[in-house]
Amino acid sequence: MSISIISGSVTSPKGFLGAGVFCDVKRMGTGKGSNKGRKLDLGVIYSKAPCAAAGMFTTNQICAAPVKVCVDHLKIGKARALVVNSGNANACTGSKGREDAESMCRQTAKCLGIKTSEVFVASTGRIGLPLPMPNVRQGVEAACGQLTTESLGGDQLAEAIMTSDTHPKQYALEFNLGGKKVTIGGVAKGAGMIQPGMSPTGNRPYSMPLHATMLSFITTDAAISKPTLQRCLTEAVASTFNRITVDGDMSTNDTVLILANGLAGNQTIRHTAKDAISKASLALFQQALNLVCFALAKMLVKDGEGVSRFVTVRVAGAKTNQQADAAVRSVANSSLVKTSWLGGDPNWGRIIDALGYSDATVEENKVDIGYSAAGSSKILYSLKAGKPTRITFERLCRAVADPEFDLHVNLNLGKGKAVMYASDLTEEYVEFNKGDVTDPASLGG
Amino acid sequence: MSISIISGSVTSPKGFLGAGVFCDVKRMGTGKGSNKGRKLDLGVIYSKAPCAAAGMFTTNQICAAPVKVCVDHLKIGKARALVVNSGNANACTGSKGREDAESMCRQTAKCLGIKTSEVFVASTGRIGLPLPMPNVRQGVEAACGQLTTESLGGDQLAEAIMTSDTHPKQYALEFNLGGKKVTIGGVAKGAGMIQPGMSPTGNRPYSMPLHATMLSFITTDAAISKPTLQRCLTEAVASTFNRITVDGDMSTNDTVLILANGLAGNQTIRHTAKDAISKASLALFQQALNLVCFALAKMLVKDGEGVSRFVTVRVAGAKTNQQADAAVRSVANSSLVKTSWLGGDPNWGRIIDALGYSDATVEENKVDIGYSAAGSSKILYSLKAGKPTRITFERLCRAVADPEFDLHVNLNLGKGKAVMYASDLTEEYVEFNKGDVTDPASLGG
Repeated sequence: MSISIISGSVTSPKGFLGAGVFCDVKRMGTGKGSNKGRKLDLGVIYSKAPCAAAGMFTTNQICAAPVKVCVDHLKIGKARALVVNSGNANACTGSKGREDAESMCRQTAKCLGIKTSEVFVASTGRIGLPLPMPNVRQGVEAACGQLTTESLGGDQLAEAIMTSDTHPKQYALEFNLGGKKVTIGGVAKGAGMIQPGMSPTGNRPYSMPLHATMLSFITTDAAISKPTLQRCLTEAVASTFNRITVDGDMSTNDTVLILANGLAGNQTIRHTAKDAISKASLALFQQALNLVCFALAKMLVKDGEGVSRFVTVRVAGAKTNQQADAAVRSVANSSLVKTSWLGGDPNWGRIIDALGYSDATVEENKVDIGYSAAGSSKILYSLKAGKPTRITFERLCRAVADPEFDLHVNLNLGKGKAVMYASDLTEEYVEFNKGDVTDPASLGG
Repeated sequence: MSISIISGSVTSPKGFLGAGVFCDVKRMGTGKGSNKGRKLDLGVIYSKAPCAAAGMFTTNQICAAPVKVCVDHLKIGKARALVVNSGNANACTGSKGREDAESMCRQTAKCLGIKTSEVFVASTGRIGLPLPMPNVRQGVEAACGQLTTESLGGDQLAEAIMTSDTHPKQYALEFNLGGKKVTIGGVAKGAGMIQPGMSPTGNRPYSMPLHATMLSFITTDAAISKPTLQRCLTEAVASTFNRITVDGDMSTNDTVLILANGLAGNQTIRHTAKDAISKASLALFQQALNLVCFALAKMLVKDGEGVSRFVTVRVAGAKTNQQADAAVRSVANSSLVKTSWLGGDPNWGRIIDALGYSDATVEENKVDIGYSAAGSSKILYSLKAGKPTRITFERLCRAVADPEFDLHVNLNLGKGKAVMYASDLTEEYVEFNKGDVTDPASLGG
């Protein structure tokens, strides 16, 4: 039952092909686009066999056209392919935007000889500009013409979806299911507008506002039923992508899609099966999918715009899990807390302040605050029951000097707990996002 | 019925004395404090006659000791004086902190020959450190010894309450009530941890989390009943101090206090009086108090840490006022929106994104977004009914190039509206707040 991490990507599972091309989505050729250099900007993933598909989508009420098309196509049936562009989010583009997203699917289906409803679509980049469809059409044709099962295909796809990311993000692993080797591979992009809150339908399951464009596409050759795949993806995203924040802004385009083509030949995984072997298979697949999503989610935070610190914030002892979530998001999104992380400052005053204005019930004389090395349970407390401990300032400074550490809060009021994977707030973030108004096409969502 | 702005401060109204001294609250003398220079750090306000008092206090659940003492003293009766220090917030300091805050009142009362319950107290600065009481006691004695009705007293007080403020903030005005000249004067401090949400008792009247230490002290020689004064202050704060944000963090110490000693000799203002003259007096006093609070609130935002832009964000057309408030706070606190203001970037994509993830209902094809000069109703729309207008990018850039402008959002779904007075997010804010861990005493709330 062991899982092995492999060097790979979305083309690692059997039967998946990938490609990425440059088609000038930002229209640099016209002199109207940004001058960030010739980076691949359109990609296609294709499966040789029909796939079960599942997705998680932004719960932002302002929801981009490609997200709406994905939600519709998910309802219809099997999936075979995905087309994605960077440089333009196709968000807030009205009925024209919707037609363009559908046209991307139609064009891709035509090139691949499959049905339009079997194609998923995603976009990331500037909000509010119509897609340059002649460029996109040329890109789709070129990408479909160079699809390959080689790692080059996955590498190109990973580059094509990047916006302000400084490097491509890929991850893959394999494991054994009843004698059959199953592989899961994934890519992701993030950088800014990162605090996803995604649901399977794009509708809100939350009673509180959540706040990236983040995109992630995952492929697997596992045989798994569609409803089981959606359950597994929902669970994996809830504990990974939906627990990250860079700047607290939730994007109009956040999308996670998984395609499972069954070519591994394992016995189909179904959550409804009650025998021990089926349950063990489901548990192993879930564990593997969680690992892929967590690895990619962590890469998103670490490569967030200007980010220098990766902090795992854990709140325990809240009255309810929902209160723990409110508390942990308040801390993880506080500008003052995030700047103190940048400065390597073990400031508990800003942390307890952020807890105090959250929606969680907090009693000053019960709050514990401490630090540990990443993943360690050996906590160095700066505050115990609301009182500063005798740990020296120098030792606390050393605890937050690492680029990666865990912050532990215990409200000591109940059993509610929650975690967020957060970044610091840096001058580079501000510098990057204040934009360059001499270059209109560089601005956007 | 005209109101005249005068050059003045808390010592402008009849019978008010002020003073500020340096007593080394940060203990620079011990080598343990910060090296920001010798700035006045303790102040006293004193009224020759007993005052009606009213206050508004942070609704943060982590609430500093002086705030708790003020809430208690407000319940008791008349007020005569206020003592305040900067450099130490006396927050999260347990029962010792509470004793210290009461001791400050007792010491001040003794020096002035009044009752302890007639003294209010406030602190701002680092969270979690005990007050250096020998220094504070020496400061109280010195300040009480040099109280003056001269403008010097108000000037010293205004300096003594500053923390990261770059300049003192004072405002005063006068008006005629039934032949008697009434004067209102105020001081304030702010800079960071600024999104106050204050109530008369420090308890939450809000169904949503609000997020400076901001302090403001207002004096007036108007004769006004205590309940009427509290009503007037509550109303004034609701539309001014509670509508500002620098970084979205609500402090543990936010306090607004007003003292009214009646020495103007006007007929006592009472909200229960039903005659036309009384109603007109009340309306005029309210209008004047709103002006003082708004002027001081605006100064707080403009002098916020690293701030370069003052943006009035107006949301109209929400389904309810509460939804408008959720929408306007989401926009005013979005890191991406605030950095675009810094860059002079009329980016509506980030604005509509922040609206979409707020708790307000938003329909993409109904949203209008536009800009005007500060206070002007002549709006230049970048988005109308969810569609970009034909206004050129260059014109929109000019509209947001001023250090002060208004952003107008109309959701076109109802009659709810709300306003926030907000700043941009700058590299200087980050630089300032990442702190200097080589100087422990410079860190804190």
